[in-house]
Amino acid sequence: MGEAAEKRANGVKPAIDFRTEPARYRHWKLAADGDTATLTMDVDEKAPLLGGYELKLNSYDLGVDIELADAIERLRFEHPQVKVVILRSAKDRVFCAGANIRMLAGATHAHKVNFCKFTNETRNSIEEASELSDQKYVCVVNGTAAGGGYELALACDHIMLVDDGAAAVSLPELPLLAVLPGTGGLTRVTDKRKVRRDRADVFCTTEEGVKGKRAVEWRLVDETMPRSKLEEAVAARTKTIAAKASPRNGAGIALTPIERKRTPDANDYKYVSVEFERDNRLATITLRGPDSPAPAIADDLAKQGAASWLLQIARELDDAILDIRLNELEIATLVFKSVGDLQAVLEHTMALDSFDHWLAREIRLKWRRVLKRIDMTSRSLATLIEPGSCFAGLLAELIFAADRSYMLIGQRQGDNRAPASIILSDANLSGQYPMSNGLSRLATRFLGEPEALDGARDALGKPLDAEEADALGLITAALDDIDWEDEVRLFLEERASFSPDGLTGMEANLRFAGPETMETKIFARLTAWQNWIFQRPNAVGPEGALTRYGSGQKPNFDLKRV
Amino acid sequence: MGEAAEKRANGVKPAIDFRTEPARYRHWKLAADGDTATLTMDVDEKAPLLGGYELKLNSYDLGVDIELADAIERLRFEHPQVKVVILRSAKDRVFCAGANIRMLAGATHAHKVNFCKFTNETRNSIEEASELSDQKYVCVVNGTAAGGGYELALACDHIMLVDDGAAAVSLPELPLLAVLPGTGGLTRVTDKRKVRRDRADVFCTTEEGVKGKRAVEWRLVDETMPRSKLEEAVAARTKTIAAKASPRNGAGIALTPIERKRTPDANDYKYVSVEFERDNRLATITLRGPDSPAPAIADDLAKQGAASWLLQIARELDDAILDIRLNELEIATLVFKSVGDLQAVLEHTMALDSFDHWLAREIRLKWRRVLKRIDMTSRSLATLIEPGSCFAGLLAELIFAADRSYMLIGQRQGDNRAPASIILSDANLSGQYPMSNGLSRLATRFLGEPEALDGARDALGKPLDAEEADALGLITAALDDIDWEDEVRLFLEERASFSPDGLTGMEANLRFAGPETMETKIFARLTAWQNWIFQRPNAVGPEGALTRYGSGQKPNFDLKRV
Repeated sequence: MGEAAEKRANGVKPAIDFRTEPARYRHWKLAADGDTATLTMDVDEKAPLLGGYELKLNSYDLGVDIELADAIERLRFEHPQVKVVILRSAKDRVFCAGANIRMLAGATHAHKVNFCKFTNETRNSIEEASELSDQKYVCVVNGTAAGGGYELALACDHIMLVDDGAAAVSLPELPLLAVLPGTGGLTRVTDKRKVRRDRADVFCTTEEGVKGKRAVEWRLVDETMPRSKLEEAVAARTKTIAAKASPRNGAGIALTPIERKRTPDANDYKYVSVEFERDNRLATITLRGPDSPAPAIADDLAKQGAASWLLQIARELDDAILDIRLNELEIATLVFKSVGDLQAVLEHTMALDSFDHWLAREIRLKWRRVLKRIDMTSRSLATLIEPGSCFAGLLAELIFAADRSYMLIGQRQGDNRAPASIILSDANLSGQYPMSNGLSRLATRFLGEPEALDGARDALGKPLDAEEADALGLITAALDDIDWEDEVRLFLEERASFSPDGLTGMEANLRFAGPETMETKIFARLTAWQNWIFQRPNAVGPEGALTRYGSGQKPNFDLKRV
Repeated sequence: MGEAAEKRANGVKPAIDFRTEPARYRHWKLAADGDTATLTMDVDEKAPLLGGYELKLNSYDLGVDIELADAIERLRFEHPQVKVVILRSAKDRVFCAGANIRMLAGATHAHKVNFCKFTNETRNSIEEASELSDQKYVCVVNGTAAGGGYELALACDHIMLVDDGAAAVSLPELPLLAVLPGTGGLTRVTDKRKVRRDRADVFCTTEEGVKGKRAVEWRLVDETMPRSKLEEAVAARTKTIAAKASPRNGAGIALTPIERKRTPDANDYKYVSVEFERDNRLATITLRGPDSPAPAIADDLAKQGAASWLLQIARELDDAILDIRLNELEIATLVFKSVGDLQAVLEHTMALDSFDHWLAREIRLKWRRVLKRIDMTSRSLATLIEPGSCFAGLLAELIFAADRSYMLIGQRQGDNRAPASIILSDANLSGQYPMSNGLSRLATRFLGEPEALDGARDALGKPLDAEEADALGLITAALDDIDWEDEVRLFLEERASFSPDGLTGMEANLRFAGPETMETKIFARLTAWQNWIFQRPNAVGPEGALTRYGSGQKPNFDLKRV
């Protein structure tokens, strides 16, 4: 199918496409110059993603955020020399009005929730770029930063606010719309900027927000300056921050377009295939092992660039997951499979983990984000390990990211491939691919039996068959050929029969044992409350605040506190 | 009003009364014998709290849990010699079938949420008794422990399960009812018992649960034994646990009945008055200072028993809060005031904190629970500090528990009382009255400015006027007589005008900055998801699982994953 004609296979609406590039941006401009880049928000109000609303005052929808996410990623891969990113607005006296309210009022609950999840992941990626790639974000608030606009600023390292008696930061969601800020605002106010709770309470209930000196005193922003001094202040601040950043070397690589072939029941990439069985509410995601040997030195990796196996498969997998999240709402379960050379996957993982090179670091961080994206995907996750599969090293993380994983014992009748094995590498234990709770998936898995981590460590690099993997606690069950078909089929059928909402809640609770972080607080606590509120008649009912916004009619609330 | 005739002042249904005592229990038997007590669940199926359902198979409603909470509290105050509490069932081959499903299906959303909150607080009080009063709970599962039945077991220290091929523990909420376990089950499975997540997934999707050896292997229970050996095993286990417990001394005190006088617009206790302005959606809770000097030695405290000021006022305040939560659903804001001798309150607090005596410890822990109950109350909380008030020591915690606190500067016209002061004591800083995040309210308040804690420490014991309190960051604002009326009135009116749901979500996020604990995970993450699910048509719609339970009709789900 051609790109323009690409339709959602199970519907008539065009599928939402997460692939983009700066030349195609409608809403952002990305300009890199030496160690500084400027990312300018200039939303085209006539280019909404879903239609039926205008993106006035730099308000955004998912289409705007897809470009932002792309820009953040390109800054890391294509512009590694950049130390400071200046995030600013091209609109006069408006930084960003937040998520578009008409879009929210018209969108389905599922779209709203998925939109918020993606925007949250994008804000997290700004903070990750700051922390782990040492690309610092300076936010220039030249006017109103309301709701999601201020939340975008909150994701940055340093917030500069013009002091002109009008420019203000605000989280007006509650007073205006009877909902919560949907992109981590409350949590970042209390836990990142550590604003005193009664001040946070005043701030979040004051529609017009806080400006000037008080915004600094309350730690809502880092500095203010008269409008006439703004550019001077931005230049000075950028210089100070760049001076503190780590030195850079190496030119970037081009993130070439991700090629995808969509047919009615499949989505095919070079190393990833997604096969839909919509009647069974299943998507099977097959990962293919490398077709070339692991790079011997980091320079080989740099030469391969976006075509290097671990980067390309990560980008393809990310796109496949996002496509399912937004475009395939009735899929209940994602089944991960793999096919390829087990030892080769191990070698690629070990090579990647061994290189002290900016690109290796960025590919590792990309995997970190993709794996977290999978953890956060509100579909049931199952990994099936069969003969011919290659779940080693980084791919083995999918065994531990899954809600359940099943491994076949021995061979199948009529299939002379060797029995399945898996191989662990340091990637599975080192903690450099953590879940959002800050622990590795194996450490989370073995919270109750830390000695099992020693068992896994002793098995590093060794092919483990089904019974060995089971004995080490690495899989849910090892099944022989006779049991396999029934057990797996029953599990998948059962999953498809349960209440989708109940599963979402259950998985959100069972996946993240152990410590909590700002990230888990945002995704679990804040998101769950927001989802609840987004369902309540006081927000979305016929007399709710979101529905009545802009109608001139006041909302009519059910006054019971719950 | 007489107790039987007591009606909810703003409705026709009888108010739910949280006051009870063993002689009036319908569902539990409490028997203490030396260092062991037995708490036997024997639910009277003909005595539901709300009507319209029967409490079969030891299923429970709020009425059953009110008795359980009372029993747990009496064990601490009346039976401090008890080291081990055996929690068991009087029904044959049934431990407890969990929360009554017909009650849940028929109850309002607000009642369900408040019911779950109270049962959660009760389970937490079991864990607190174990940790801080060294009263260990042994749960004897003699048959089915399903849903809330298993969650009750999870709150205990040690779970014994009969191995007879039938007795099992289960969390069948998702497969059976399309909701989540509502009393911390998922979190205690993953974070307390640290069950591996794929096993937790299997367990929580298996209606019939897990029994026998597998239940032990998966760490769902601590031991199993044949039915014929059960009593012997319970006796042996009780003895072992009692032998490890700390030595006891001192007889208990009687928790005499809490006297309350209800009139249409007020609730009056000896030291607490609640005044309702329902048109303004306000409840003003006034705390009265002590009418006798602080006990000089711990024995004085023991002699006063339940009549000692700090114990009696804590019990009255607890009852007042619970009454509002369950019976006054449209009240938006609780306003805390106090009247009395500031210095006397300080002396009582300091005396309580200084005694190394079991009763002083229990009164401190009671305050800890009451203050947490206030933190967890989903109403806006405001504390008003005016001339004549006595917010010192423990009462000053209400300043920091509030979403906002306002203090009057100077005197009021025509009122010759001295300007208001507050006094901090070690109780406000020591961390022995923590929020559920594990930090003191002041430490939470000052997460972003830890030096402010030093300022508070330097001010210990000194009366602080409004401007001093403001300068130390202890209050939201100091207001003079002219501003006071407008500011406070506008705040209370504004609060009453906001969406109750939005406020609930906002306050749940702003109140608990900083670290997370199993308790905050249960109250925030799990509860928020559960509230969301409890609103979704897949559970409570006309074709939802909760609605159709027992009808013979299968639920009909909206299949979109959100």
